[in-house]
Amino acid sequence: MPQSSSLNRRIVLASRPRGEPADSDFRLETDAVPEPGPGQLLLRTVYLSLDPYMRGRMSDAPSYAEPVQVGQPMVGGTVARVVASRHADYPVGEWVLSQSGWQDYAVSDGSGLLKLGSAPERPSYSLGVLGMPGFTGYMGLLDIGQPKAGETVVVAAASGAVGAVVGQLAKIHGCKAVGIAGGADKCRYVVEELGFDACIDHRDPAMANLLAKAVPQGIDVYFENVGGAVFDAVLPLLNPRARVPVCGLISAYNATSLPDGPDRLPLLMRTILTKRIKMQGFIIFNEYAPRFGEFRAAMQELLRDGRIKYREDVVDGLENAPRGLMGLLKGENAGKRIVRVGPDE
Amino acid sequence: MPQSSSLNRRIVLASRPRGEPADSDFRLETDAVPEPGPGQLLLRTVYLSLDPYMRGRMSDAPSYAEPVQVGQPMVGGTVARVVASRHADYPVGEWVLSQSGWQDYAVSDGSGLLKLGSAPERPSYSLGVLGMPGFTGYMGLLDIGQPKAGETVVVAAASGAVGAVVGQLAKIHGCKAVGIAGGADKCRYVVEELGFDACIDHRDPAMANLLAKAVPQGIDVYFENVGGAVFDAVLPLLNPRARVPVCGLISAYNATSLPDGPDRLPLLMRTILTKRIKMQGFIIFNEYAPRFGEFRAAMQELLRDGRIKYREDVVDGLENAPRGLMGLLKGENAGKRIVRVGPDE
Repeated sequence: MPQSSSLNRRIVLASRPRGEPADSDFRLETDAVPEPGPGQLLLRTVYLSLDPYMRGRMSDAPSYAEPVQVGQPMVGGTVARVVASRHADYPVGEWVLSQSGWQDYAVSDGSGLLKLGSAPERPSYSLGVLGMPGFTGYMGLLDIGQPKAGETVVVAAASGAVGAVVGQLAKIHGCKAVGIAGGADKCRYVVEELGFDACIDHRDPAMANLLAKAVPQGIDVYFENVGGAVFDAVLPLLNPRARVPVCGLISAYNATSLPDGPDRLPLLMRTILTKRIKMQGFIIFNEYAPRFGEFRAAMQELLRDGRIKYREDVVDGLENAPRGLMGLLKGENAGKRIVRVGPDE
Repeated sequence: MPQSSSLNRRIVLASRPRGEPADSDFRLETDAVPEPGPGQLLLRTVYLSLDPYMRGRMSDAPSYAEPVQVGQPMVGGTVARVVASRHADYPVGEWVLSQSGWQDYAVSDGSGLLKLGSAPERPSYSLGVLGMPGFTGYMGLLDIGQPKAGETVVVAAASGAVGAVVGQLAKIHGCKAVGIAGGADKCRYVVEELGFDACIDHRDPAMANLLAKAVPQGIDVYFENVGGAVFDAVLPLLNPRARVPVCGLISAYNATSLPDGPDRLPLLMRTILTKRIKMQGFIIFNEYAPRFGEFRAAMQELLRDGRIKYREDVVDGLENAPRGLMGLLKGENAGKRIVRVGPDE
């Protein structure tokens, strides 16, 4: 069922998943398109972003953000167009970056919207390299990671929206960039297209050894977005005074209990102490919102100059968003995964 | 056997301890007092510092510093006097802060010495509140912890050399200071003498609950110097954007293996992420040596004004240093533990 001008499809959280989300955790509902009141505008979704953090919002475990309520639409960043307006600042036809979630239409009073103009060049980029994931890679690497020329930077999910930015920025700052990704195709892309110095396939049973060989000088910055076995392989390779920005732990998002022992928490603490490591968690818009404009300007220039490359993985149709998210959590995407919800025009 | 002018007693590492150090891991040896060559000077130890880090140096596990070699004198900070000199900058009678270790006499070429003058007011303070432990508390709290007025600061080993400085500085900066210490006497001292807002006895089986009640606003800075059960109690109480300077893990120094599972490493990582926590290990003189003078000037003023209080726990005689260290690792000290090795004059 394609997007219609009279019906509002939305995908709601049907139940909280235990472990990996399943089809039955989502439900497609249909409703009338809402009408904007005074001072409001109506948005039509063109693109929806799919991101690993969404798994966290499906759970009610304590986290940095409120969970999605069962029966409510899934949250998500969108690129949308104004299709009706009773708000002076938002003429019909304007493109915006919004948080209107997994649905065709949403009413807004303008708060939290970023204007993208009436004819943006590549509007969907604002969900990726010019949006939350790119901003995460940019600030996490440069502000927390503080890479210096000659240092070694390692990032996992290297072909993904965040990892690709981290590694390319590391190269731009004169560092050695080593990626970790799932499968030979992704690794080839990371090295040949994105210009990383090396990329390790995390499915290879020898991953830890291969990583150690790829970083003969140790690791100065590990940009943490996956956790699990990759972190375990990285930990003994961290150099004194290494920096570990922590922006995600995709490998653990589906976990329902802690792994078996021994308890390595004391080992991690001892490593932090003896190697004088800085680990710092961050949630990009909580920590860095005032610097979003600065990031956008810098990244637009890097894209224009061809110094940052970017690839999208487009899922077609809102009804395919649940499968798209489930696949993303398994790493089946090739590039930044977005959903084409409706036509540009 | 008291200090003599002709014999040099020294305590060497006899064997590497497994778990808690024992008497048999140390050996007292006697030798002739060495003679300074050209450009050298001879130091006579007056005070020896005993500190938890010494346990780490007895092991050959990888750490931030070289281990003591079996058969070599134990390392340690000392306050000493120049008793013979062929070095123009060091007249006989001068007091210095040195790293001459567990022995009566040592030859030096002057490198690494800090001059304390010919008649310092309280020379032993340079092993504690005006030395490495005070510097650790000062920089860890102020530079890494970044406490803001109204925030809550928690520190364990609160009656010890580092903890006492951390809590008192927290109060001076307008924070709420909550200490953790072993036993009612120490807790009373921490609250009544040092002016902390509260102190929890870590021997109380209800420690975690008592701590939670003592920090109704959560914890903004946890100064980590013990690890173990205290850290476990602190972790769920950390506020978003909490800072955790990590300068020691005394509870784990005697550990020979990791605790049983489950493996809480992923839990710690998730907490760092979802609460956007900064954890940072530091080894005071590696990270902050250039700021030692600034620290000494500030701390001398705070002591002079009575805003920082300080207590020493003096063990008499070099031969009692091993027992003194073993007791320190069990928390039996009341204040900064030092050894009176020889007379002032």
